[in-house]
Amino acid sequence: MLHELPLAKVYQFIEPGPVALLTTQRPGHKPNVMTLSWHMMMEFEPPLIGCIVSGNNHSFATLEQTGEAVLAVPPASLAETVAAVGNCTGRDTDKFGVYPLTPLPAKLVGAPLVGEAIVSLECRVRDTTLAQTYNMFVLEVVRAWINPALAEAPTLHHHGYGTFVLDGETIKVKSKMR
Amino acid sequence: MLHELPLAKVYQFIEPGPVALLTTQRPGHKPNVMTLSWHMMMEFEPPLIGCIVSGNNHSFATLEQTGEAVLAVPPASLAETVAAVGNCTGRDTDKFGVYPLTPLPAKLVGAPLVGEAIVSLECRVRDTTLAQTYNMFVLEVVRAWINPALAEAPTLHHHGYGTFVLDGETIKVKSKMR
Repeated sequence: MLHELPLAKVYQFIEPGPVALLTTQRPGHKPNVMTLSWHMMMEFEPPLIGCIVSGNNHSFATLEQTGEAVLAVPPASLAETVAAVGNCTGRDTDKFGVYPLTPLPAKLVGAPLVGEAIVSLECRVRDTTLAQTYNMFVLEVVRAWINPALAEAPTLHHHGYGTFVLDGETIKVKSKMR
Repeated sequence: MLHELPLAKVYQFIEPGPVALLTTQRPGHKPNVMTLSWHMMMEFEPPLIGCIVSGNNHSFATLEQTGEAVLAVPPASLAETVAAVGNCTGRDTDKFGVYPLTPLPAKLVGAPLVGEAIVSLECRVRDTTLAQTYNMFVLEVVRAWINPALAEAPTLHHHGYGTFVLDGETIKVKSKMR
Protein backbone atom coordinates (compact mmCIF):
# COMPACT_ATOMS: atom_id res chain seq x y z
CA MET A 1 0.00 0.00 0.00
CA LEU A 2 2.79 2.51 0.86
CA HIS A 3 5.58 2.99 -1.67
CA GLU A 4 9.08 4.10 -0.80
CA LEU A 5 9.76 7.78 -1.54
CA PRO A 6 13.32 8.75 -2.58
CA LEU A 7 14.91 10.89 0.13
CA ALA A 8 15.81 13.55 -2.46
CA LYS A 9 12.08 14.23 -3.00
CA VAL A 10 11.16 14.72 0.65
CA TYR A 11 11.54 18.52 0.52
CA GLN A 12 8.75 18.78 -2.09
CA PHE A 13 6.27 17.77 0.61
CA ILE A 14 7.64 19.73 3.58
CA GLU A 15 8.76 23.00 1.96
CA PRO A 16 5.17 24.08 1.09
CA GLY A 17 4.37 24.29 4.82
CA PRO A 18 1.59 21.73 5.34
CA VAL A 19 0.15 20.89 8.74
CA ALA A 20 1.92 17.71 9.88
CA LEU A 21 1.45 14.92 12.37
CA LEU A 22 4.36 13.78 14.53
CA THR A 23 4.27 10.26 15.95
CA THR A 24 6.47 8.97 18.77
CA GLN A 25 6.59 5.76 20.77
CA ARG A 26 8.18 4.86 24.06
CA PRO A 27 9.19 1.20 24.27
CA GLY A 28 6.44 -0.76 26.02
CA HIS A 29 3.89 2.05 25.62
CA LYS A 30 1.23 2.87 23.05
CA PRO A 31 2.29 5.19 20.24
CA ASN A 32 1.37 8.87 20.46
CA VAL A 33 0.66 11.51 17.82
CA MET A 34 0.59 15.31 17.86
CA THR A 35 -0.24 18.06 15.38
CA LEU A 36 2.56 20.34 14.26
CA SER A 37 2.85 23.30 11.91
CA TRP A 38 6.15 24.80 13.02
CA HIS A 39 8.66 22.99 10.82
CA MET A 40 11.05 23.79 7.98
CA MET A 41 13.45 22.09 5.61
CA MET A 42 17.11 22.61 6.58
CA GLU A 43 18.92 20.44 4.01
CA PHE A 44 17.97 18.57 0.83
CA GLU A 45 19.79 15.26 1.22
CA PRO A 46 19.96 13.65 3.58
CA PRO A 47 16.80 15.62 4.33
CA LEU A 48 17.03 17.61 7.56
CA ILE A 49 13.87 19.10 9.04
CA GLY A 50 13.74 21.54 11.93
CA CYS A 51 10.64 21.48 14.12
CA ILE A 52 9.34 23.01 17.33
CA VAL A 53 7.78 20.63 19.87
CA SER A 54 6.60 22.52 22.93
CA GLY A 55 8.13 21.38 26.21
CA ASN A 56 4.53 21.10 27.46
CA ASN A 57 3.83 18.36 24.95
CA HIS A 58 3.92 14.71 25.93
CA SER A 59 5.87 14.14 22.70
CA PHE A 60 8.80 16.33 23.82
CA ALA A 61 9.93 13.87 26.50
CA THR A 62 9.48 10.85 24.24
CA LEU A 63 11.39 12.54 21.43
CA GLU A 64 14.25 13.38 23.78
CA GLN A 65 14.26 9.88 25.26
CA THR A 66 13.95 7.77 22.09
CA GLY A 67 15.55 10.11 19.53
CA GLU A 68 13.03 8.87 16.96
CA ALA A 69 9.80 10.07 15.37
CA VAL A 70 7.73 9.92 12.21
CA LEU A 71 6.66 13.16 10.54
CA ALA A 72 3.55 12.58 8.42
CA VAL A 73 1.58 14.90 6.12
CA PRO A 74 -2.20 14.35 6.32
CA PRO A 75 -4.59 15.11 3.45
CA ALA A 76 -7.10 17.95 3.88
CA SER A 77 -9.90 15.42 4.31
CA LEU A 78 -8.48 14.72 7.79
CA ALA A 79 -8.91 18.34 8.98
CA GLU A 80 -11.24 17.52 11.87
CA THR A 81 -8.99 14.71 13.09
CA VAL A 82 -5.91 16.91 12.77
CA ALA A 83 -7.54 19.62 14.90
CA ALA A 84 -8.83 17.10 17.45
CA VAL A 85 -5.39 15.50 17.79
CA GLY A 86 -3.97 18.97 18.37
CA ASN A 87 -6.48 19.65 21.15
CA CYS A 88 -5.77 16.72 23.45
CA THR A 89 -2.69 15.21 25.07
CA GLY A 90 -1.16 11.75 24.94
CA ARG A 91 -0.80 12.02 28.71
CA ASP A 92 -4.44 10.96 29.14
CA THR A 93 -5.64 10.03 25.63
CA ASP A 94 -4.78 7.04 23.44
CA LYS A 95 -5.07 9.11 20.27
CA PHE A 96 -4.51 6.26 17.81
CA GLY A 97 -7.26 4.39 19.67
CA VAL A 98 -9.71 7.30 19.58
CA TYR A 99 -9.16 8.91 16.18
CA PRO A 100 -9.30 7.35 12.69
CA LEU A 101 -5.52 7.09 12.29
CA THR A 102 -3.80 3.74 11.69
CA PRO A 103 -0.30 3.23 13.13
CA LEU A 104 1.80 1.09 10.76
CA PRO A 105 5.23 -0.32 11.59
CA ALA A 106 8.17 1.72 10.31
CA LYS A 107 11.40 0.11 9.02
CA LEU A 108 14.10 1.98 10.92
CA VAL A 109 12.44 3.73 13.87
CA GLY A 110 10.14 2.70 16.69
CA ALA A 111 7.53 5.41 16.01
CA PRO A 112 4.70 4.37 13.66
CA LEU A 113 3.88 5.51 10.12
CA VAL A 114 0.35 6.88 9.62
CA GLY A 115 -1.74 4.81 7.23
CA GLU A 116 -3.99 7.71 6.21
CA ALA A 117 -1.16 10.20 5.55
CA ILE A 118 0.11 11.30 2.13
CA VAL A 119 3.72 10.80 3.19
CA SER A 120 5.29 9.38 6.35
CA LEU A 121 8.92 10.25 7.07
CA GLU A 122 10.97 8.10 9.43
CA CYS A 123 13.22 10.44 11.39
CA ARG A 124 16.09 10.32 13.85
CA VAL A 125 16.89 13.27 16.08
CA ARG A 126 20.09 14.71 14.69
CA ASP A 127 20.64 17.83 16.79
CA THR A 128 19.20 19.11 20.08
CA THR A 129 21.40 22.19 20.46
CA LEU A 130 18.34 24.47 20.53
CA ALA A 131 15.96 22.06 22.32
CA GLN A 132 16.22 23.77 25.69
CA THR A 133 16.18 27.36 24.45
CA TYR A 134 13.55 27.11 21.68
CA ASN A 135 12.06 23.58 21.94
CA MET A 136 13.67 22.93 18.57
CA PHE A 137 14.75 19.55 17.23
CA VAL A 138 16.66 18.90 14.01
CA LEU A 139 15.35 15.66 12.50
CA GLU A 140 17.11 13.62 9.82
CA VAL A 141 14.81 11.70 7.50
CA VAL A 142 16.22 8.19 7.17
CA ARG A 143 13.43 6.53 5.19
CA ALA A 144 10.32 7.93 3.50
CA TRP A 145 6.99 6.49 2.36
CA ILE A 146 4.25 7.77 0.09
CA ASN A 147 0.64 6.66 -0.26
CA PRO A 148 0.24 6.71 -4.07
CA ALA A 149 -3.56 6.97 -3.83
CA LEU A 150 -3.12 10.27 -1.96
CA ALA A 151 -0.17 11.68 -3.92
CA GLU A 152 -2.29 14.50 -5.39
CA ALA A 153 -4.47 15.14 -2.31
CA PRO A 154 -4.60 18.74 -1.09
CA THR A 155 -2.88 19.51 2.20
CA LEU A 156 -3.81 21.88 5.03
CA HIS A 157 -2.13 25.16 5.99
CA HIS A 158 -2.94 26.49 9.45
CA HIS A 159 -3.76 30.18 9.92
CA GLY A 160 -4.58 29.93 13.63
CA TYR A 161 -7.56 28.92 15.76
CA GLY A 162 -8.77 26.10 13.52
CA THR A 163 -8.75 28.10 10.28
CA PHE A 164 -7.10 26.06 7.55
CA VAL A 165 -6.43 26.95 3.93
CA LEU A 166 -6.41 24.06 1.45
CA ASP A 167 -4.05 23.73 -1.50
CA GLY A 168 -5.60 25.31 -4.58
CA GLU A 169 -4.41 25.89 -8.12
CA THR A 170 -0.95 24.68 -9.23
CA ILE A 171 1.13 26.94 -11.46
CA LYS A 172 4.48 26.39 -13.11
CA VAL A 173 6.94 29.25 -13.51
CA LYS A 174 10.26 29.15 -15.35
CA SER A 175 12.76 28.56 -12.57
CA LYS A 176 16.05 26.94 -11.72
CA MET A 177 15.10 26.92 -8.04
CA ARG A 178 15.28 23.48 -6.56
CA MET B 1 -0.68 52.66 2.57
CA LEU B 2 0.80 50.05 4.95
CA HIS B 3 -0.92 49.51 8.31
CA GLU B 4 0.84 48.27 11.42
CA LEU B 5 0.19 44.59 12.19
CA PRO B 6 0.13 43.54 15.87
CA LEU B 7 3.10 41.29 16.61
CA ALA B 8 0.77 38.66 18.11
CA LYS B 9 -0.77 38.11 14.65
CA VAL B 10 2.49 37.57 12.77
CA TYR B 11 2.33 33.76 13.09
CA GLN B 12 -0.91 33.65 11.10
CA PHE B 13 1.04 34.67 8.00
CA ILE B 14 4.21 32.61 8.48
CA GLU B 15 2.86 29.34 9.92
CA PRO B 16 1.03 28.40 6.67
CA GLY B 17 4.38 28.12 4.89
CA PRO B 18 4.23 30.76 2.14
CA VAL B 19 7.14 31.57 -0.14
CA ALA B 20 8.81 34.66 1.34
CA LEU B 21 11.17 37.41 0.28
CA LEU B 22 14.06 38.42 2.52
CA THR B 23 15.51 41.90 2.13
CA THR B 24 18.84 43.06 3.52
CA GLN B 25 20.90 46.21 3.18
CA ARG B 26 24.53 46.98 3.84
CA PRO B 27 25.14 50.60 4.83
CA GLY B 28 26.12 52.59 1.77
CA HIS B 29 24.97 49.89 -0.64
CA LYS B 30 21.76 49.21 -2.53
CA PRO B 31 19.26 46.92 -0.81
CA ASN B 32 19.12 43.27 -1.84
CA VAL B 33 16.30 40.72 -1.87
CA MET B 34 16.21 36.92 -2.05
CA THR B 35 13.51 34.26 -2.25
CA LEU B 36 13.13 31.92 0.72
CA SER B 37 10.85 29.00 1.55
CA TRP B 38 12.76 27.38 4.39
CA HIS B 39 11.38 29.16 7.44
CA MET B 40 9.26 28.36 10.49
CA MET B 41 7.66 30.03 13.48
CA MET B 42 9.55 29.38 16.72
CA GLU B 43 7.63 31.55 19.20
CA PHE B 44 4.36 33.51 19.17
CA GLU B 45 5.35 36.76 20.92
CA PRO B 46 7.70 38.31 20.50
CA PRO B 47 7.52 36.42 17.20
CA LEU B 48 10.62 34.36 16.49
CA ILE B 49 11.16 32.93 13.02
CA GLY B 50 13.84 30.43 12.07
CA CYS B 51 15.13 30.53 8.50
CA ILE B 52 17.82 28.99 6.35
CA VAL B 53 19.91 31.35 4.22
CA SER B 54 22.49 29.42 2.23
CA GLY B 55 26.07 30.43 2.83
CA ASN B 56 26.35 30.81 -0.95
CA ASN B 57 23.83 33.63 -0.90
CA HIS B 58 24.90 37.23 -1.00
CA SER B 59 22.33 37.83 1.78
CA PHE B 60 24.11 35.51 4.23
CA ALA B 61 27.08 37.86 4.66
CA THR B 62 24.87 40.95 4.92
CA LEU B 63 22.61 39.28 7.46
CA GLU B 64 25.63 38.30 9.56
CA GLN B 65 27.16 41.75 9.26
CA THR B 66 24.10 43.95 9.87
CA GLY B 67 21.97 41.62 12.03
CA GLU B 68 18.87 43.00 10.33
CA ALA B 69 16.43 41.93 7.62
CA VAL B 70 12.84 42.22 6.48
CA LEU B 71 10.85 39.05 5.82
CA ALA B 72 7.99 39.77 3.42
CA VAL B 73 5.18 37.58 2.09
CA PRO B 74 4.39 38.23 -1.58
CA PRO B 75 0.96 37.60 -3.14
CA ALA B 76 0.62 34.83 -5.74
CA SER B 77 0.35 37.43 -8.49
CA LEU B 78 4.10 38.01 -8.04
CA ALA B 79 5.02 34.39 -8.86
CA GLU B 80 7.21 35.21 -11.86
CA THR B 81 9.06 37.93 -9.97
CA VAL B 82 9.52 35.65 -6.96
CA ALA B 83 11.06 32.94 -9.17
CA ALA B 84 13.23 35.43 -11.04
CA VAL B 85 14.53 36.93 -7.79
CA GLY B 86 15.38 33.40 -6.66
CA ASN B 87 17.34 32.74 -9.84
CA CYS B 88 19.83 35.59 -9.70
CA THR B 89 22.26 36.97 -7.14
CA GLY B 90 22.66 40.37 -5.54
CA ARG B 91 26.38 39.99 -6.23
CA ASP B 92 25.85 41.14 -9.84
CA THR B 93 22.18 42.20 -10.00
CA ASP B 94 20.40 45.21 -8.52
CA LYS B 95 17.21 43.23 -7.98
CA PHE B 96 15.08 46.12 -6.73
CA GLY B 97 16.18 48.03 -9.82
CA VAL B 98 15.35 45.21 -12.22
CA TYR B 99 12.16 43.66 -10.83
CA PRO B 100 8.82 45.31 -9.99
CA LEU B 101 9.46 45.45 -6.22
CA THR B 102 9.44 48.75 -4.34
CA PRO B 103 11.78 49.14 -1.34
CA LEU B 104 10.12 51.25 1.37
CA PRO B 105 11.89 52.55 4.49
CA ALA B 106 11.38 50.45 7.62
CA LYS B 107 11.04 51.97 11.10
CA LEU B 108 13.54 49.98 13.15
CA VAL B 109 15.88 48.23 10.71
CA GLY B 110 18.02 49.25 7.76
CA ALA B 111 16.58 46.66 5.37
CA PRO B 112 13.58 47.82 3.31
CA LEU B 113 9.93 46.79 3.45
CA VAL B 114 8.48 45.54 0.15
CA GLY B 115 5.65 47.73 -1.15
CA GLU B 116 3.99 44.93 -3.13
CA ALA B 117 4.03 42.36 -0.29
CA ILE B 118 1.05 41.30 1.82
CA VAL B 119 3.05 41.68 5.03
CA SER B 120 6.56 42.96 5.72
CA LEU B 121 8.20 41.97 9.00
CA GLU B 122 11.09 44.00 10.39
CA CYS B 123 13.51 41.54 11.97
CA ARG B 124 16.65 41.53 14.06
CA VAL B 125 18.93 38.50 14.17
CA ARG B 126 18.41 37.00 17.61
CA ASP B 127 20.50 33.82 17.50
CA THR B 128 23.23 32.51 15.18
CA THR B 129 24.11 29.35 17.13
CA LEU B 130 23.27 27.17 14.11
CA ALA B 131 24.43 29.60 11.40
CA GLN B 132 27.69 27.82 10.69
CA THR B 133 26.37 24.24 10.90
CA TYR B 134 23.01 24.65 9.12
CA ASN B 135 22.97 28.22 7.71
CA MET B 136 20.17 28.89 10.18
CA PHE B 137 19.27 32.27 11.65
CA VAL B 138 16.70 32.94 14.37
CA LEU B 139 14.99 36.25 13.61
CA GLU B 140 12.95 38.29 16.07
CA VAL B 141 10.15 40.32 14.51
CA VAL B 142 10.32 43.80 16.05
CA ARG B 143 7.70 45.58 13.92
CA ALA B 144 5.20 44.33 11.36
CA TRP B 145 3.25 45.89 8.50
CA ILE B 146 0.30 44.75 6.44
CA ASN B 147 -0.97 45.97 3.09
CA PRO B 148 -4.76 46.01 3.72
CA ALA B 149 -5.57 45.86 0.00
CA LEU B 150 -3.74 42.51 -0.17
CA ALA B 151 -4.86 41.04 3.17
CA GLU B 152 -6.91 38.33 1.45
CA ALA B 153 -4.57 37.70 -1.49
CA PRO B 154 -3.53 34.07 -2.02
CA THR B 155 0.09 33.19 -1.27
CA LEU B 156 2.50 30.78 -2.97
CA HIS B 157 3.77 27.42 -1.70
CA HIS B 158 6.84 26.06 -3.43
CA HIS B 159 6.96 22.38 -4.44
CA GLY B 160 10.32 22.56 -6.21
CA TYR B 161 11.60 23.60 -9.64
CA GLY B 162 9.21 26.51 -10.14
CA THR B 163 6.04 24.60 -9.30
CA PHE B 164 3.91 26.65 -6.93
CA VAL B 165 0.57 25.82 -5.32
CA LEU B 166 -1.71 28.75 -4.57
CA ASP B 167 -3.93 29.08 -1.51
CA GLY B 168 -7.34 27.62 -2.22
CA GLU B 169 -10.46 27.08 -0.13
CA THR B 170 -10.56 28.21 3.53
CA ILE B 171 -12.22 25.94 6.07
CA LYS B 172 -12.90 26.42 9.77
CA VAL B 173 -12.73 23.50 12.18
CA LYS B 174 -13.60 23.55 15.88
CA SER B 175 -10.23 23.99 17.54
CA LYS B 176 -8.47 25.50 20.51
CA MET B 177 -5.19 25.46 18.59
CA ARG B 178 -3.59 28.84 18.45
